[in-house]
Amino acid sequence: MIQKVGRGLLRSELKTSIHARAYATTRPSLHRANEDKSCVHPCYSNTNKLSTLHRPTAIVLLNMGGPATLPAVQPFLTNLFSDGDLIPLPLQSFSAPWIAKRRTPQIEKQYAAIGGGSPILKWSEQQGQGMVDLLNEEIPELGNFRSYVGFRYADPLTPEMLGRLKEDGVKRAVAFTQYPQYSCSTTGSSLNELYRQVHKLGSEGIKWSVIDRWGMHEGFVEAVTSRILAALEQLPAHRRSKATLLFSAHSLPMSVVNRGDPYVAEVAMTVGSVMRRLANHETPHANPYRLVWQSQVGPSAWMGQQTSEAIKGLARLGGIEEKRAAADNVVLVPIAFTSDHIETLYELDLEYVKEGEELGLTVVRAESLNGSPIFIRAMADIVKDHMKETEGPNGQPVSQQMMLRCPGCTNDTCGQQKRWFSKWGSD
Amino acid sequence: MIQKVGRGLLRSELKTSIHARAYATTRPSLHRANEDKSCVHPCYSNTNKLSTLHRPTAIVLLNMGGPATLPAVQPFLTNLFSDGDLIPLPLQSFSAPWIAKRRTPQIEKQYAAIGGGSPILKWSEQQGQGMVDLLNEEIPELGNFRSYVGFRYADPLTPEMLGRLKEDGVKRAVAFTQYPQYSCSTTGSSLNELYRQVHKLGSEGIKWSVIDRWGMHEGFVEAVTSRILAALEQLPAHRRSKATLLFSAHSLPMSVVNRGDPYVAEVAMTVGSVMRRLANHETPHANPYRLVWQSQVGPSAWMGQQTSEAIKGLARLGGIEEKRAAADNVVLVPIAFTSDHIETLYELDLEYVKEGEELGLTVVRAESLNGSPIFIRAMADIVKDHMKETEGPNGQPVSQQMMLRCPGCTNDTCGQQKRWFSKWGSD
Repeated sequence: MIQKVGRGLLRSELKTSIHARAYATTRPSLHRANEDKSCVHPCYSNTNKLSTLHRPTAIVLLNMGGPATLPAVQPFLTNLFSDGDLIPLPLQSFSAPWIAKRRTPQIEKQYAAIGGGSPILKWSEQQGQGMVDLLNEEIPELGNFRSYVGFRYADPLTPEMLGRLKEDGVKRAVAFTQYPQYSCSTTGSSLNELYRQVHKLGSEGIKWSVIDRWGMHEGFVEAVTSRILAALEQLPAHRRSKATLLFSAHSLPMSVVNRGDPYVAEVAMTVGSVMRRLANHETPHANPYRLVWQSQVGPSAWMGQQTSEAIKGLARLGGIEEKRAAADNVVLVPIAFTSDHIETLYELDLEYVKEGEELGLTVVRAESLNGSPIFIRAMADIVKDHMKETEGPNGQPVSQQMMLRCPGCTNDTCGQQKRWFSKWGSD
Repeated sequence: MIQKVGRGLLRSELKTSIHARAYATTRPSLHRANEDKSCVHPCYSNTNKLSTLHRPTAIVLLNMGGPATLPAVQPFLTNLFSDGDLIPLPLQSFSAPWIAKRRTPQIEKQYAAIGGGSPILKWSEQQGQGMVDLLNEEIPELGNFRSYVGFRYADPLTPEMLGRLKEDGVKRAVAFTQYPQYSCSTTGSSLNELYRQVHKLGSEGIKWSVIDRWGMHEGFVEAVTSRILAALEQLPAHRRSKATLLFSAHSLPMSVVNRGDPYVAEVAMTVGSVMRRLANHETPHANPYRLVWQSQVGPSAWMGQQTSEAIKGLARLGGIEEKRAAADNVVLVPIAFTSDHIETLYELDLEYVKEGEELGLTVVRAESLNGSPIFIRAMADIVKDHMKETEGPNGQPVSQQMMLRCPGCTNDTCGQQKRWFSKWGSD
């Protein structure tokens, strides 16, 4: 899964980061395991921990994925509507392809409008490579780290990812969700799928641990904060301190919220951490803000307030309160995805920003984390902490919080999956 | 409003607190302003800041209040159902007394079961006195602090509170909400009522500022954390680290959530802060947890998962996952009220704890903050920071966040109230 796309750019970005000292050292790139499995790479010739470096430790970035091209849209939607952990449908194996087919033309148009496909694979590979470069530099004694991508609805799907692990001789893997906040609909579904596919494909024999959530990790929070500060810079200086920050996260059906899914609370915890960090920054910011919810579909009740309603409301109320003359300046902050995707590039940029501006607001969008060196540093730190804990004397493969099923859960796979991961991925 | 109820107890509790050094100094109590307004109290004879100390600076604790006795139940309910900021009803001045009368017998029974009335006034007075004692000790140069209580639905109501301020010659007051997290239904309603009553009663001429939310204040967070640690101590040692923490907050109708009310997010931010603090404690705790919602009434949609459903769910699922054998140990943590009231003493203690135990769970309830010296220390710190900021060169009477109306707000009083407070309570 190592590609060189954008690595030159990444490295120069990283050099400018306050966190990126490690990157100032020039060193040869790591090669893929199937190229160097049987030999010792020259860059490790001065270490005496070769035995542990022999087999790669897989850091598997789990995410939903997105169609990289227009012809990939329909298979992507078919996978999505076939996910019973996400949307249980009657006669799912028949209804999913039918619904997917019906929705394809509209979604294809959206992907066409953002350049013909989702950039999520590109960003995931770049983030993963930056992360393992740091890990191999800083904790070579804990593993020879290699990054893999496992998407839920687009290539590389879980079976493909598992095939690569097998090909590379992986015996130790970390399932590292790329959803900062846990939902059964996102991370839960990815973990269920991983559990199912390992059994279906007979990919047992790998020792798994899980990084299941990290929405309050200070590195992640700093990465978001720095994107907000950069967005505020785009506003006239005298309006910056009063611009409204609209944190926008993908919504969730209330039926999921009401069974005890922790996502809504965890997204709010991220927002709280970001607001606290802004308040304590070098130039402290205490902007007014709201957490709002986007991408609701269908007629059932979803978590609100909806992002589009909030924008309309801000436009309607803007200027009412004396102090709020600058409330017509809005910064949209994607807070629950780390890379650009249809919900940022189309829904936020092409729908809501436009809608707000038609209503007289000035709307800027905080950039997604994408290639942020602060974020890549944070990813490495999260894995580093995880490796130290799990490989320590009382190391556990899962968090206690992950082991707590939603009190309203009726999905037996969730229980089986959690039990299985709690035994390092064994039955 | 200065009463001596429980002050001996409070002082001895405070002496045991790590934060309570200030309380070791014995000094005479402050008298009420109408007793000493025209003379200099002997305890201040050695200071040269008498002019600023002459008039009291009022710290007004705003809260919903509760009926102190059974005959006070019906008037309390009548006030509650008459609050159009909380529940807009058709023909409210007729329908409110009628609904209140109908509901009185059932609510009277609940108050009878918890000892005949709400302890909230007692706790508010004790907390307020402890707070101003600290302030007068530590920042006498910023005011001669005196604490007042202003309840929304029980005595002392806003007009009574305003009468006391007038009687004491107050010219500077801080509206200090006792709801840690902001909702239009709680703090918003109290501020609207204060705005209305000042105009109705002609109580202009006081310079007001507002402390509108403090759900992530580290002192408050530590106070909650220490109550959780004490509750965990009640469980057998080997079960403590795995007991489920159920943070329970009063729910909110989805119609309020969906217009952009910040309460749900802010409660989650408190929970996140508490979980972070538990993780960083001397003996770190990483218990599994959920934020759940209680006290839903009526047929409309409210924020969930409901506390009672979560308890039933934990009982149903308990023991499924290998690691969850201890999930049958539950600590209920009230997270959005600071003092005991019907929702903790009746609903949590007499309904949910009992229900959980009937279902085979071991349920303990984390004590409300009540007389917690850590909490009283936090209250003083919150006011201290506020006074330093507001009395500083660029001091503002309100936060920017308070000035941002909910994007879906259609209550004109909210806009008028915010404008008025942003000018220190003047038109």
